[in-house]
Amino acid sequence: MINETTLRVRYSETDQMGVVYYANYLVWMEVGRTNLIRECGITYKELESKGYILPVVYVVGKYLKPSYYDDEIIVQSALMEATLTKIRIGYKIYRTSENGRELVFVGLTDLVFMDAKSGKVVKMPEFFREAVKISETEEYKSFVEDVKRTLKV
Amino acid sequence: MINETTLRVRYSETDQMGVVYYANYLVWMEVGRTNLIRECGITYKELESKGYILPVVYVVGKYLKPSYYDDEIIVQSALMEATLTKIRIGYKIYRTSENGRELVFVGLTDLVFMDAKSGKVVKMPEFFREAVKISETEEYKSFVEDVKRTLKV
Amino acid sequence: MINETTLRVRYSETDQMGVVYYANYLVWMEVGRTNLIRECGITYKELESKGYILPVVYVVGKYLKPSYYDDEIIVQSALMEATLTKIRIGYKIYRTSENGRELVFVGLTDLVFMDAKSGKVVKMPEFFREAVKISETEEYKSFVEDVKRTLKV
Amino acid sequence: MINETTLRVRYSETDQMGVVYYANYLVWMEVGRTNLIRECGITYKELESKGYILPVVYVVGKYLKPSYYDDEIIVQSALMEATLTKIRIGYKIYRTSENGRELVFVGLTDLVFMDAKSGKVVKMPEFFREAVKISETEEYKSFVEDVKRTLKV
Repeated sequence: MINETTLRVRYSETDQMGVVYYANYLVWMEVGRTNLIRECGITYKELESKGYILPVVYVVGKYLKPSYYDDEIIVQSALMEATLTKIRIGYKIYRTSENGRELVFVGLTDLVFMDAKSGKVVKMPEFFREAVKISETEEYKSFVEDVKRTLKV
Repeated sequence: MINETTLRVRYSETDQMGVVYYANYLVWMEVGRTNLIRECGITYKELESKGYILPVVYVVGKYLKPSYYDDEIIVQSALMEATLTKIRIGYKIYRTSENGRELVFVGLTDLVFMDAKSGKVVKMPEFFREAVKISETEEYKSFVEDVKRTLKV
Repeated sequence: MINETTLRVRYSETDQMGVVYYANYLVWMEVGRTNLIRECGITYKELESKGYILPVVYVVGKYLKPSYYDDEIIVQSALMEATLTKIRIGYKIYRTSENGRELVFVGLTDLVFMDAKSGKVVKMPEFFREAVKISETEEYKSFVEDVKRTLKV
Repeated sequence: MINETTLRVRYSETDQMGVVYYANYLVWMEVGRTNLIRECGITYKELESKGYILPVVYVVGKYLKPSYYDDEIIVQSALMEATLTKIRIGYKIYRTSENGRELVFVGLTDLVFMDAKSGKVVKMPEFFREAVKISETEEYKSFVEDVKRTLKV
């Protein structure tokens, strides 16, 4: 499954270069994966209320083009890999221009399941594993290939 | 007591107008009051570890001049008033230019003592009341007058 | 006219108190007024492309209740006053809970028309004045009264 | 040369997990490289005033441990590579605890020289090349090796 989240660039997200400040793409990746998980039938909020946290332990991002204030942004996110304790999510971020979608950023994040109290790494809970099953459509495969090729991972 | 905290404007704090984005002055007020409390001999961190939180319930800010990337910023903060459950802190924020200090922002925040678990308003803890005693120096009085006059409160 | 903008609280907008950090309400007010102006038929982006900037010179905010990660937030904004060079916009921010809308924040911002190059205050451009005409509906009047009463302005 | 910049974690930089939100490490890397360049005798501000911009085109970050509100943070940054148009800067970020420095984050950013007006990639200006000469001390070599090994680049 590929989640598609639309948002609009806020003035607060720009910097004096006149473009979106680079750290904000990490905020957008987070907004994307929140909705990816929601689309799978669970919410990150629930996950936390069950005593889990899911911190990011690794991030890679490639900035292809700038994006601008008031741009309509589309964040595509998809689960790329899952191990016992970790998931890798990939992202393609587009801005909408007169010429259609323009790819501006490609990234990935690794997230680890932890017990909120102890801060210890734990196994992915069963209800999560069941919810986020990977469906191997052509579109999905091509998304994952794109992210891998762009980021050379 | 008037605490004086120095910081430097980060690139992330600018916006495409080429100046510091207006919400960041609230972040700087928070940095200022953290140090004001620290200078009184307690830390906000301790306060939280004792089961209190001190959320902002009211804010007023007047933007007099812009500040810019890489500016050296001075945040002055002082306790203006204290009631049983609430404190008012005033702020004067300066940028350093060739001509000396230039006043760019004047603000105030009201903060309320709450029990972290219940979220209920509680009395200011005794150790806090003792630590933050107001010393009525001329400098202090003039600071408070300035904030009141500028913000018309 | 009262613009109504819906957004969802981002993880990045929370702090360790477990609630939305207080400066983010200023970001939301900005998102609201961007859409208020858009609903009037102009965009802030256009305004800037015509050589104007519209910086905030005064802000007041009252925090009534906390809002939380993943909350659906509704930002209502409306023009309260307009002079030759300045506009005052009022805001009521709600979170959506099981019990309906819960008012969490009331605020206002004063914005001044400036020439982007010189940084000098200028008269509100005619196309702006025409676009943002105030329509004195009952709903609008009650909104403005609410903001004034809550903020005591 | 390895620049060492000290900062203190702001309340605004935490999230409801009770730790620093992951995007803020990118802000800290930016603060570090600003000071690295300053230590070389130029300022990023000057670079922009001469018509250059230096946007980030690639970022990698590994989150080793959390950092917390009010922590003293040390950002080490050093130039790792320079080509005709691009520089790679590496970062090691520590928090200070009772047990001394604890490494919490390792990252790198690639930045490209661009003409501010055209947005075209340009050659690194001569004054920059001269200022940032790499000095091959043992400490420097070991820093670069650490970053490379940790990030597998």
